[in-house]
Amino acid sequence: MKLKTLDLMVRIAERGGIGKPIPLTLRVLAKDLGVSPQTVLRWIGELEEMGYIKRAEEGRGTKIQLTEKGLEFLEELYENLSKALYRGVIIGEVVSGIGEGAYYVRQYAPLIREYLGFDPFPGTLNVKVIFPKTIFDALYSARPIVIPGFVKEGRSFGDVRAYRVRIGGIEGAIVIPSRTIHSPKIAEIISPVNLREKLGLKDGDRIRIEAL
Amino acid sequence: MKLKTLDLMVRIAERGGIGKPIPLTLRVLAKDLGVSPQTVLRWIGELEEMGYIKRAEEGRGTKIQLTEKGLEFLEELYENLSKALYRGVIIGEVVSGIGEGAYYVRQYAPLIREYLGFDPFPGTLNVKVIFPKTIFDALYSARPIVIPGFVKEGRSFGDVRAYRVRIGGIEGAIVIPSRTIHSPKIAEIISPVNLREKLGLKDGDRIRIEAL
Repeated sequence: MKLKTLDLMVRIAERGGIGKPIPLTLRVLAKDLGVSPQTVLRWIGELEEMGYIKRAEEGRGTKIQLTEKGLEFLEELYENLSKALYRGVIIGEVVSGIGEGAYYVRQYAPLIREYLGFDPFPGTLNVKVIFPKTIFDALYSARPIVIPGFVKEGRSFGDVRAYRVRIGGIEGAIVIPSRTIHSPKIAEIISPVNLREKLGLKDGDRIRIEAL
Repeated sequence: MKLKTLDLMVRIAERGGIGKPIPLTLRVLAKDLGVSPQTVLRWIGELEEMGYIKRAEEGRGTKIQLTEKGLEFLEELYENLSKALYRGVIIGEVVSGIGEGAYYVRQYAPLIREYLGFDPFPGTLNVKVIFPKTIFDALYSARPIVIPGFVKEGRSFGDVRAYRVRIGGIEGAIVIPSRTIHSPKIAEIISPVNLREKLGLKDGDRIRIEAL
């Protein structure tokens, strides 16, 4: 099967052809896919032969829908992609933070020692996430360690979720404050060492983070 | 692109070629994909030309990994599939319940009236979910109405999540008791009318449920 034929199935699903027939609009589908109506018709024939779609004449028009076999095929592809892509690997670009990291790491240091088992370097490595689209896609199957919030000198510090990671052979954790100002496009990483120095990183460098 | 070439990219991701090069094992990949090593090599050349993978000679072997462009391509396909497939449509097969539905609907009836705005027929239509794999895949973007639990005559009744749905033009709700004995493979539907009678349904019939 060609990828374009798969695209055609996706378009039929998008247009509502799941569990009910929808009008077959050859011209529209052809435009969507950037091919001729004749080509769409040929692909429909192929998909029908494979048992992935079914066609029915209704009144003056033709209607079309995905079969259960076709839906199963798409779901399997979806699941394979999900398993292959979201395995706890994050690719990102080193960026500079706004300098607040060190202050917060100092405040949480005793709890980081207690919950994560290491004395954190006072500072965070900030990484702009390139893949996947958000940190959460990569971490959805990872179990966070919740570092509870506390009050210190009249100031309250919120809960922080920590995900253990490895980066360039060094262990650390992505920390996501419940009151973060960062979008999930920035991962803040703490570690026992100065990651930037230890790994010789500068802004713009690509790095690979692996959730443990 | 052929679907098999896409499969090859998925295999490279599965084997860890995300953000780091992995050994290119032609024979293994060929066996996975059911083609010859020569064919795999040709596909790798095609994918490299499209900028989706990159190859590097290292020591005596070749290493391979997906590029950021390749990862983006896979992520886009994943998102398109997700949007096309999981639009609140459920396809299922009518099955018989164990007869408990009527009892529970009677207990919750005043709350169903209050929270969902209708007087429920005393009984549920039970539907074995065929697509998607679980009810939750179809309902993940739908907002449940939580019917709070209560105590009556010394017996306690748990919270129930209700999702408004339409089935054969009739409105109702899928109800998921927090203490359900059903796996998410069975959807229990309540409605102001006797759905089985009104829609002329019998066990084994296929129906289409649409989340509202």
